[in-house]
Amino acid sequence: MLIVMKQGVTEAEVAEVVERVTAMGLRAHPIPGSLRTAIGVTGNQGPLEAALFELMPGVLRAIAVTQPFKLVSREVRHDDTVIKVGERQIGGGVFAVIAGPCAVETEQQTIGIAQRVAAAGAHFLRGGAFKPRTSPYSFQGLEEKGLRILVKAREETGLPIVTEVLDTDTVDLVAEHADVLQIGARNMQNYSLLKRVGRIRRPVLLKRGMSATVDELLMSAEYIAAEGNYSICLCERGVRTFSNHTRNTLDLSAVPAVKSLSHLPIIVDPSHGTGKRDKVIPMARAAAAAGADGLMVEVHANPDRALSDGPQALLPDQFDTMMREVRAIAALVGRTL
Amino acid sequence: MLIVMKQGVTEAEVAEVVERVTAMGLRAHPIPGSLRTAIGVTGNQGPLEAALFELMPGVLRAIAVTQPFKLVSREVRHDDTVIKVGERQIGGGVFAVIAGPCAVETEQQTIGIAQRVAAAGAHFLRGGAFKPRTSPYSFQGLEEKGLRILVKAREETGLPIVTEVLDTDTVDLVAEHADVLQIGARNMQNYSLLKRVGRIRRPVLLKRGMSATVDELLMSAEYIAAEGNYSICLCERGVRTFSNHTRNTLDLSAVPAVKSLSHLPIIVDPSHGTGKRDKVIPMARAAAAAGADGLMVEVHANPDRALSDGPQALLPDQFDTMMREVRAIAALVGRTL
Amino acid sequence: MLIVMKQGVTEAEVAEVVERVTAMGLRAHPIPGSLRTAIGVTGNQGPLEAALFELMPGVLRAIAVTQPFKLVSREVRHDDTVIKVGERQIGGGVFAVIAGPCAVETEQQTIGIAQRVAAAGAHFLRGGAFKPRTSPYSFQGLEEKGLRILVKAREETGLPIVTEVLDTDTVDLVAEHADVLQIGARNMQNYSLLKRVGRIRRPVLLKRGMSATVDELLMSAEYIAAEGNYSICLCERGVRTFSNHTRNTLDLSAVPAVKSLSHLPIIVDPSHGTGKRDKVIPMARAAAAAGADGLMVEVHANPDRALSDGPQALLPDQFDTMMREVRAIAALVGRTL
Amino acid sequence: MLIVMKQGVTEAEVAEVVERVTAMGLRAHPIPGSLRTAIGVTGNQGPLEAALFELMPGVLRAIAVTQPFKLVSREVRHDDTVIKVGERQIGGGVFAVIAGPCAVETEQQTIGIAQRVAAAGAHFLRGGAFKPRTSPYSFQGLEEKGLRILVKAREETGLPIVTEVLDTDTVDLVAEHADVLQIGARNMQNYSLLKRVGRIRRPVLLKRGMSATVDELLMSAEYIAAEGNYSICLCERGVRTFSNHTRNTLDLSAVPAVKSLSHLPIIVDPSHGTGKRDKVIPMARAAAAAGADGLMVEVHANPDRALSDGPQALLPDQFDTMMREVRAIAALVGRTL
Repeated sequence: MLIVMKQGVTEAEVAEVVERVTAMGLRAHPIPGSLRTAIGVTGNQGPLEAALFELMPGVLRAIAVTQPFKLVSREVRHDDTVIKVGERQIGGGVFAVIAGPCAVETEQQTIGIAQRVAAAGAHFLRGGAFKPRTSPYSFQGLEEKGLRILVKAREETGLPIVTEVLDTDTVDLVAEHADVLQIGARNMQNYSLLKRVGRIRRPVLLKRGMSATVDELLMSAEYIAAEGNYSICLCERGVRTFSNHTRNTLDLSAVPAVKSLSHLPIIVDPSHGTGKRDKVIPMARAAAAAGADGLMVEVHANPDRALSDGPQALLPDQFDTMMREVRAIAALVGRTL
Repeated sequence: MLIVMKQGVTEAEVAEVVERVTAMGLRAHPIPGSLRTAIGVTGNQGPLEAALFELMPGVLRAIAVTQPFKLVSREVRHDDTVIKVGERQIGGGVFAVIAGPCAVETEQQTIGIAQRVAAAGAHFLRGGAFKPRTSPYSFQGLEEKGLRILVKAREETGLPIVTEVLDTDTVDLVAEHADVLQIGARNMQNYSLLKRVGRIRRPVLLKRGMSATVDELLMSAEYIAAEGNYSICLCERGVRTFSNHTRNTLDLSAVPAVKSLSHLPIIVDPSHGTGKRDKVIPMARAAAAAGADGLMVEVHANPDRALSDGPQALLPDQFDTMMREVRAIAALVGRTL
Repeated sequence: MLIVMKQGVTEAEVAEVVERVTAMGLRAHPIPGSLRTAIGVTGNQGPLEAALFELMPGVLRAIAVTQPFKLVSREVRHDDTVIKVGERQIGGGVFAVIAGPCAVETEQQTIGIAQRVAAAGAHFLRGGAFKPRTSPYSFQGLEEKGLRILVKAREETGLPIVTEVLDTDTVDLVAEHADVLQIGARNMQNYSLLKRVGRIRRPVLLKRGMSATVDELLMSAEYIAAEGNYSICLCERGVRTFSNHTRNTLDLSAVPAVKSLSHLPIIVDPSHGTGKRDKVIPMARAAAAAGADGLMVEVHANPDRALSDGPQALLPDQFDTMMREVRAIAALVGRTL
Repeated sequence: MLIVMKQGVTEAEVAEVVERVTAMGLRAHPIPGSLRTAIGVTGNQGPLEAALFELMPGVLRAIAVTQPFKLVSREVRHDDTVIKVGERQIGGGVFAVIAGPCAVETEQQTIGIAQRVAAAGAHFLRGGAFKPRTSPYSFQGLEEKGLRILVKAREETGLPIVTEVLDTDTVDLVAEHADVLQIGARNMQNYSLLKRVGRIRRPVLLKRGMSATVDELLMSAEYIAAEGNYSICLCERGVRTFSNHTRNTLDLSAVPAVKSLSHLPIIVDPSHGTGKRDKVIPMARAAAAAGADGLMVEVHANPDRALSDGPQALLPDQFDTMMREVRAIAALVGRTL
């Protein structure tokens, strides 16, 4: 249920509604908006009586939310969510580019790429310190050492860090170093992890699972929001199909689908979404044209020697080209970068 | 095999090579190019000896073609194929927009939409006279009467006609009225039909099958080319996956994939590719940004009453918006429209 | 609509109903059953008034059919359809095994395999004379010569022939030689071909398309039935998915799904359904256990030299094993073979 | 690498090899077999020299393992793995049936179903205490209370317990109560959880992910084995495709695929694999016929009131039928139950 407050409502009135919701054993989620304040209510098993709230002072209306996802739905919040990280922003008309190596390999490699993508205009640095690998015998990431390298790269370049968190045990460690916590495709329905990152105060980048529907992606975001963390950015990264000219099939129509169902920003990862370097730039352009709020792109100075996913990494010069082309297209659809 | 001729080769030298190929029971396909003339050879079961041709006058080299598709591969022809229909063009830097109703319903409806899309800048008129329908009890199209309506619409607007041909029996009838013959997704591997349209002299618009790989799409184009018709435009129209927020999953990465493997132009159908009106414009923009050579879009003045596929048709005003937005993006990637 | 006649109805009464249906511009399909005679009505755009028929002599009830497929639905006909070919049968408790080479290659090869599978207890001989091949340069079948070889093999072994028909032009030729006409997966939605085989009097084996739903398979069968040919056997042959340990993913749950929705028999092709010899026997057993009405299996004496699909063909000794194992399982689920 | 020891090797000789492997910073996995003892070596980045081990006393041969999965591959261990739980067994010719409710709801419900399935011949009791649910607002399981109910049901019936573990935090708690730990489809690539259950001494039931290939399933099993827990049973439970007559598409060919690649047992879950009650028994029969080592089936006395997945639960009487039918088929393929 969504309780919409009148314009000019007082803090005391909001607090009273929150108190009544809590007293019923439910959870209240105050949602400030540009036009109105509203309070999302979650935790009820069946429908609630609107009359329970509509007679309270300051309440305009209490309305049922028809989507299975509540807090992340457009119904509950009309304005786009904007994620702020220092001076950087995702959503709200700003097109954010997150770039860097697939995995943090060495300090030199990471800082080198970070400087290069910063110079080209990237807004965030990506790089995996904890790597989910299909084989237990593959390189699993530098772990805490990798996080420290990312921090140095941030100090050198000013780029905030986006990095993956693999399990509940390392959430605090990663959150201590990183600016944005990434939940990977394989963990999209790792509900314990979702709840855990819902309880910290760091923005979360949630990637779509390989065979997840858009509704399931939004339900996973709801797990995070239901714990109180509303700073969530979604990411389309390709789904698994029979189609074999790319590693995954990038489902760009998820962008307008999310935009109409939810207020959360959504970015696109054309590196995993294609798995092939020569398809990354065309799909990055297409993502911008489709209305995405940003990109997540892998860049490597020497992809043939990359410890993971070399074939999909752009060369630094290609990244320059991509930035130039994407900037022009994003401007046409009302995004600045 | 591809036999590459020297610059300045004479017609007689080309004819002599063709004669030798034919004498071997094989088929020769002369392929004029901007830089060189070449002759594709098909019909051999195993590899051919290069020496059989390399000593002939005018021959520069004879090279094996490594792709399973030959005539439609970039290996065989470096320059982009350009399809010319009167003063209109698909490929070669021109972005072509094919628009109109899903099905021809009445003269008034068809001419009305044709005038509207022509005014907005469309280059071709689409409209189905023969409709492939899942149910035998659904509207199957106006057939020959529909073709005559399309001809009237062409007379009124000057727009060349693109319309579907369903079977070998009606190829001549459709070719008599239409400018471009469309092979639908369900018929992508109807080899008898492919061979039949390979023997006429009308451009063919070949749509990707619902579960066809890009290689299979090119192999189907090869069926047409092998019969002598090289005027083929491919069309990505969505593939079938688990993803359920759209009717099909538009696989835009097929655009750069085709571009690197083949010299044929490829356009995108965001109407079937999404099946939902509110996703058509974003995906049309994305297709242009990905480097497609054009769009095929359904437009209907009254979609709620359309006899087929109403939910995916743009309203005329929406089509205006689409044209404006696509024009700007296409320009950024080197296409004029 | 289905018009159910009273028990003991006269032929004249049936004829009168047929006449009224025809006079309305619709089509009547008398459907004899073990318990009752019924008349299917097709061709109406909207719903029909039951009262139009219920007052006629001999009519028990007129009921709307809720499924999009009518004539092939269980609603319209409760009893299982049984297909009879000479003394052979598909459906009605008889488990039919159709075996033979993928393609007819030579007389010796075909008759040799036919004798071998006949000795092992197969009921029908399969073998392609017209082959749908992804590449125009692959072996396309022996065509009419292949049909004549199949006829000789039938003369030698008594096995009726099941062979594929690729297009409308060759339906009469194939029907002249073959006992059962196969429509391949690629042609499942070739509606002109479906209508054409609906107008001849030969049983049709209709294979599920690579990305067709069960509903679409039944709609394609409806195209055949709507033309008056009710002798239709369906065939599950695997669908296209991401799963890569087999060539296609055999969707055996289609068997009980078809059984509950339709009265048509359904067999399974574990050769195309897996594409790998070592998976054919386990999947043949599984198909029998799931309640299929038979199997279609490829057998080749020398698969490494087969002109098509060698890797999925059973060796003759393996076919013996399969028959022994399948016979025992089929008996357990109430099928004789 | 796999180090194969001579027949009659001494414990001291095995110990010496293990010591050398460990001294190299690698990990040794002694694998006793019926015919030979072998030692798997993991942890090396590149290939190892065979000569390093082949000259040691007791060593017959050192061979490279070609599959990306090592310890779970047939190459490394020829004999089937048999999982023993008290007097019950999975694999090794014994067909194991795991049955019970989707979720533990009440003591009465759970014990009632447990008694019923035990009477029908089930070997293990299933029931979820921790439930992974798409929505944060759905019933999430009784958690520890649910585990205690399962223990009571085991006391009443003697059936060992199979129950899901959702995260690393609760592995010890679940392992304390349960006999077999289930890893669900959504967690198949939750590597932290896989490593954690690899370090306890309870058998693990690992379900295939919704879009996982068979190779990826085996790689996930390898994560568990690499930590030292070799008691792993795999489970095919359907994959996600376009096919919509079932909730998932049960990919039974995974059974023979796993059997040829790995020594691990594999069972089938026809409840999740179809999602529809009327398809469960046919697919259970098919799984047995395909050579599976067992089944995992949901049974509920009152499915319409089930707190999760009611539509796919068998009624107790249907479970009796299933057991009777499956028992006959399993016997035909060399399994006893």
